Amino acid sequence: MNQAKAAAGHLALDAEALYGQLLQGVRQLLRPGTQLAGIASGGAWLAERLQRDLQLAGSAGVLSSAMHRDDFAQRGLAASAQTQLPFDVNGADILVLDDVLYTGRTIRAVLNELFDYGRPACVRLAVLVDRGGRELPVAADFAAARVVLPATQQLALARTDAGRFHFDVKEV
Amino acid sequence: MNQAKAAAGHLALDAEALYGQLLQGVRQLLRPGTQLAGIASGGAWLAERLQRDLQLAGSAGVLSSAMHRDDFAQRGLAASAQTQLPFDVNGADILVLDDVLYTGRTIRAVLNELFDYGRPACVRLAVLVDRGGRELPVAADFAAARVVLPATQQLALARTDAGRFHFDVKEV
Repeated sequence: MNQAKAAAGHLALDAEALYGQLLQGVRQLLRPGTQLAGIASGGAWLAERLQRDLQLAGSAGVLSSAMHRDDFAQRGLAASAQTQLPFDVNGADILVLDDVLYTGRTIRAVLNELFDYGRPACVRLAVLVDRGGRELPVAADFAAARVVLPATQQLALARTDAGRFHFDVKEV
Repeated sequence: MNQAKAAAGHLALDAEALYGQLLQGVRQLLRPGTQLAGIASGGAWLAERLQRDLQLAGSAGVLSSAMHRDDFAQRGLAASAQTQLPFDVNGADILVLDDVLYTGRTIRAVLNELFDYGRPACVRLAVLVDRGGRELPVAADFAAARVVLPATQQLALARTDAGRFHFDVKEV
């Protein structure tokens, strides 16, 4: 059994295979001037690798949801990445990447984070896994997989030192 | 030719017929305790009539997008309705109504307006017409119709003194 299958148990979510599908999906979504920005940490890893594999100029942005989360009081800023956007957000066509789309609350937070930097012309969303369970009217423009997971399972992308992806599943 | 057809020209969007479909769709989305809140002005009219037709207790909320719009500097507060939420937003299951879903920017604005009042458990969205043209990753849980319109056409719900709905189409 490979690492991805071991991590995700009976679900057998193969993160490397799904990344291959995400790469194809994102290629279809690209328009001239589209900028990638990944949500830390999983989405940022995806955006960084996509930027390289798609041979896009410059580097991908990193988005932190920490400042705008509706549970900020509980979580605080500890150990969270800072937003870094190496392009002008005003008028930009931005493709946001994330590993897992779930309630939609993180997406609301990063949209507000983006709008702190400017007024984008268009923001789209591509994810590795859409696990349903939406609590806000948010949708991905592309999802490499759609799965249903028990609410007790927390799913997140992990990365080996060699840069290979696998899923980390925790019971919460 | 009836008023709705005259207003929407060759599209023949019959607002009263679509309202009937919205009523059925919203009935399916209702859960015990669901609160309706309509975006001013068209969505607020829809929510008010749905509240009555579905014989829900209390009254529907009204949401103004004015305070959180990303073009606030251009539009200002003139002639816009105030938000009125006759229920506790904290932990609420809220169904937001709007007449037309287009770029998604209004939805982002009213989500932020809602979160100024509390942290809802769930926010869903039902609209009369989804006209495509999204600029943010927002989706409706129910749309009575999906149409494609030229960007030069502005579509909005109108209401006669007798309370009947029709669409108002402007060239902009």
